[in-house]
Amino acid sequence: MEMATAGRQRQATRSVEVPPVTAGTGSGVGIVAPQTMHFTFPEAAPFRLTFGEALPAFDLVYETYGTLNAASDNAILLIHALTGDAHAAGRHDAADPKAGWWEPMIGPGRPLDTDNYFIVCVNALGGCAGSTGPCSIDPATGRAWGQTFPLIAVQDLVRAQRLLIDRLGIRRLAAVIGGSLGGMQALEWAVRFPVLLGRVAIIAAAGRLDPQGIALNEVGRRAIMLDPRWHGGDYAPGEGPDEGLAVARMVGTVTYHSKESMAMRFGRRPARRPVSRPTLGGAFDVEGYLHHHGDALVARFDAHSYLRQTRAMDLYDVAEGRGSEGWALRSVRARVLTVGIRSDWLFTPQHVRDLNEALVAAGADSAYHELDSPHGHDAFLKEWAMLDPLLRQLLA
Amino acid sequence: MEMATAGRQRQATRSVEVPPVTAGTGSGVGIVAPQTMHFTFPEAAPFRLTFGEALPAFDLVYETYGTLNAASDNAILLIHALTGDAHAAGRHDAADPKAGWWEPMIGPGRPLDTDNYFIVCVNALGGCAGSTGPCSIDPATGRAWGQTFPLIAVQDLVRAQRLLIDRLGIRRLAAVIGGSLGGMQALEWAVRFPVLLGRVAIIAAAGRLDPQGIALNEVGRRAIMLDPRWHGGDYAPGEGPDEGLAVARMVGTVTYHSKESMAMRFGRRPARRPVSRPTLGGAFDVEGYLHHHGDALVARFDAHSYLRQTRAMDLYDVAEGRGSEGWALRSVRARVLTVGIRSDWLFTPQHVRDLNEALVAAGADSAYHELDSPHGHDAFLKEWAMLDPLLRQLLA
Repeated sequence: MEMATAGRQRQATRSVEVPPVTAGTGSGVGIVAPQTMHFTFPEAAPFRLTFGEALPAFDLVYETYGTLNAASDNAILLIHALTGDAHAAGRHDAADPKAGWWEPMIGPGRPLDTDNYFIVCVNALGGCAGSTGPCSIDPATGRAWGQTFPLIAVQDLVRAQRLLIDRLGIRRLAAVIGGSLGGMQALEWAVRFPVLLGRVAIIAAAGRLDPQGIALNEVGRRAIMLDPRWHGGDYAPGEGPDEGLAVARMVGTVTYHSKESMAMRFGRRPARRPVSRPTLGGAFDVEGYLHHHGDALVARFDAHSYLRQTRAMDLYDVAEGRGSEGWALRSVRARVLTVGIRSDWLFTPQHVRDLNEALVAAGADSAYHELDSPHGHDAFLKEWAMLDPLLRQLLA
Repeated sequence: MEMATAGRQRQATRSVEVPPVTAGTGSGVGIVAPQTMHFTFPEAAPFRLTFGEALPAFDLVYETYGTLNAASDNAILLIHALTGDAHAAGRHDAADPKAGWWEPMIGPGRPLDTDNYFIVCVNALGGCAGSTGPCSIDPATGRAWGQTFPLIAVQDLVRAQRLLIDRLGIRRLAAVIGGSLGGMQALEWAVRFPVLLGRVAIIAAAGRLDPQGIALNEVGRRAIMLDPRWHGGDYAPGEGPDEGLAVARMVGTVTYHSKESMAMRFGRRPARRPVSRPTLGGAFDVEGYLHHHGDALVARFDAHSYLRQTRAMDLYDVAEGRGSEGWALRSVRARVLTVGIRSDWLFTPQHVRDLNEALVAAGADSAYHELDSPHGHDAFLKEWAMLDPLLRQLLA
């Protein structure tokens, strides 16, 4: 693992001795139950959104692990990525086949140690896993919002999280941690609410997406609207453009892997099982994998949500409304950890390094670490042994 | 421009003094007319295709520039890429607004010097610019082939070109030159017909596509079949899945550019004109550019052709049926120029370097050059000043 230090960022002497990697060891958090917090706003002062619309009310679904201390200052906000959910750790019941998405990082003795910290993970506003979104009922009509659901900005996601944090009685966050779109939100937290958080980890993310990323998101949106079941956006929940959404996910899946990981994992091997789509001259294993991931997303996500979440990602720019990136970053007070991934081509290591340098130049206490992983963007959901010491160091 | 030399490949002393870059100078080839050659095969011995079908007859449309010499050994075969055509140079009439796709490289005094060489460019079998393809009439039914048109392999494209070369009375090719899918064909020429060509240039191509490339081609194919006008492939010519084809082209367009070129050319700038597709929260310039390129392809290409040409690219492997790449390359007798592009992520410089090393290891007289261009894969259609000396050196 490479560690770059520069300027006023913290020195190696501030690094702590970390124990040998213990990812996945120690007991996990066990059975957890998602919770829901309902927010309503006075009619005259609804929740105003960055792009001009407003919501009169919304629910946020969240999970917590560990216990809030008496000083209310041991909380960590963990933020999920594009199509994620609040279920970061543990299992919903004993029969739950799959633990939360950051399971090895959360629990007693794990980097996000539930003996010391109160960890909160919230499903994004506008998402598909419990929080209010396009599949929710619009109280004004009694029908699902669908395409009338407003466009939610990264800034709005963060403002909604802030409301929940306040409601939970958290005085100040020990840390905010996020990867990819979650990393953009973590950065926005550090800029928008500088005194409310002590540390921040921005993993495989930067202050804005580059035009190649926007272009590939746009391909996905075009696929969704191409589906005969799109119906100009006017579809009933569950009767939407499934195949279009699957194709959008296929594009996304390519960006979450690297050339290297695809070569390692699939090469040019033929598909091992019959593939679910028509092909010409046989099928490659990588094609079956893409189809599978497309279908898996369809089972848990909605096209209107996907359109809006990808657009939030495209439109976010930390400099927006703040003069410049440099000016925006001058407000950061938290200790910052930026993490790039060697093989990530969605947010390249250079892109993350540039953010770190801009943070340092703006006077922030920021360091850059790089995961020497072949797994591309998704390494932040896979490289537990690499993430473990970084997170321990961040929180030490 | 970087020049890598290794092993038994030619030494620097064999490089010739090249004059200063003269790309685009000298007169071009002026007005040219495409020509058509018709091939019919005995009923008992049709043109058998690699993947098992056969064609009883086909047309190839081609253009030539310069004059075949008395010895019939001054011909150069230039091979176009995925969606290209035979119109490599000159104009079809005085009002033709656009010259051929390699115009600056072809003409008196230009690298492919028509005072010395007889240049032949053929539209791919199965393509959309005159040669027999899915939009042609199937003589057996009197209707367009459409989805009944067979899958054509890279090997078949080359075998068809060979028939034309023979028919034109060309005894031996001075060189075969191609980029991208054309470069794969150039490699296949060198392996399949080793004594029929003296030199070969393989530009931004390799002996096979990697799984990331296959994955992105598959996204395009899925978009085509998602279009409501796909109708299971049974559409009349001109009434096909235009928007699906446009989306497929949008994905392709991203792979032909680089992160760097997109950042330089578009950045995160808003679209300068209203875009042709619905958007959320405004549009980026890069999105308008993608839409434009999608529509431009639809105007000149057919979805069945696109499906088959991308699949030919996926399925090609120079090692196929030849034991291994090493064994395949041992047959090469031509002097080889391999050209990588620094910012190409479809066929990375490493991928092209690997091909060169495999050629050298197999005993071929092969050299690798790299275009130090930010323009990604499409640099072979843009970087005239870089290509000019390389081509002169190849032919010297």
